[in-house]
Amino acid sequence: MAAATKGEETRAQIIDQALRMAQTVGLEGLTFGELASALDVSKSGLFAHFESKEDLQLEVIQELADRFIASIILPAFAKARGEPRLRALFERYLAWVGNHASGGRGCLLTQLQYEFQNQRGRVKDKLVVAERSWFETLTKACAIAIQEKHFKATLDPEQFAYELLGIFTFYQHAARFFEDPRAEQRATAAFAALVERSRASRS
Amino acid sequence: MAAATKGEETRAQIIDQALRMAQTVGLEGLTFGELASALDVSKSGLFAHFESKEDLQLEVIQELADRFIASIILPAFAKARGEPRLRALFERYLAWVGNHASGGRGCLLTQLQYEFQNQRGRVKDKLVVAERSWFETLTKACAIAIQEKHFKATLDPEQFAYELLGIFTFYQHAARFFEDPRAEQRATAAFAALVERSRASRS
Repeated sequence: MAAATKGEETRAQIIDQALRMAQTVGLEGLTFGELASALDVSKSGLFAHFESKEDLQLEVIQELADRFIASIILPAFAKARGEPRLRALFERYLAWVGNHASGGRGCLLTQLQYEFQNQRGRVKDKLVVAERSWFETLTKACAIAIQEKHFKATLDPEQFAYELLGIFTFYQHAARFFEDPRAEQRATAAFAALVERSRASRS
Repeated sequence: MAAATKGEETRAQIIDQALRMAQTVGLEGLTFGELASALDVSKSGLFAHFESKEDLQLEVIQELADRFIASIILPAFAKARGEPRLRALFERYLAWVGNHASGGRGCLLTQLQYEFQNQRGRVKDKLVVAERSWFETLTKACAIAIQEKHFKATLDPEQFAYELLGIFTFYQHAARFFEDPRAEQRATAAFAALVERSRASRS
């Protein structure tokens, strides 16, 4: 891979700073003024990299989506098809929320989805695409588990994916809002129950 | 009940308008200027009712919590103890999201929880109290279903409540982000599966 140019490096630093600020103020709360001040550069310097706040918002989402894929999806898809891969997706998602949480953060993508829940436009559209892609990844991983005969043929992969998304969001609720020390244990129990009733009977 | 005074009426109108605006801009995005302009009153008129934006934010959450209790919890607790009451809580929560959704809205309380996920202070605390109270209501309703022997004695009511919260949030995902026409059908299937494996075996 070619070394990043100075311009690319600066751009990446801006996006990283914007991402960290969005954890507190959201994407709409971002301002070029506060961003410039945090990075100790001029506002016009920022405008050289991003034409508008919307451009920057879209880049922040892209960066988050890239990190999500690198942290969760690629390593999980390196695991054996079927249940092992689904288990890796589950464990890595919990770790993702936990990593962010270690700095007092949850899954920023989830937070942004709710921030833009009632908006229209390119930013909302990009968030929906990212979320749909995650949903389709889970659906596909479940369909493969059926092909591998780990899961029963009558299972509906989309229903499975929705229920798994439900477990992921309640985990965030438990860990983030209630600071429940047993959040992980509860999510793990719910996942085990979901897998158990999805399994093909050994006959 | 005594008739509301003019001051109380105005105050309620301000809160209602703030609540509607928060659906798009969040509670942090609210400004007294835009609120005054939408209500066609002066900013100083607003300050006569609310000392600070934080005061107003706290009142909006209180109003939402009151509506939540009146729309979901009180009618459900008028139903027979056990499974019928849990079913009513489930159905009324879906209707609540749907009612809001009919104007292009989801559950505003959920949206606000994520907006304040990484904040500290009185507003975040009030949101956590509201969410915890909902969680405790679901836990209690499950514990009663165990007492009534509708559900098995070994069931963990908190685990049940978490899984139910998961179904509620994936319903919002399905209905709001994906505009999935089968969102209700999927949530209903997940709830049926949760109830089925919670039931006491008829022996």
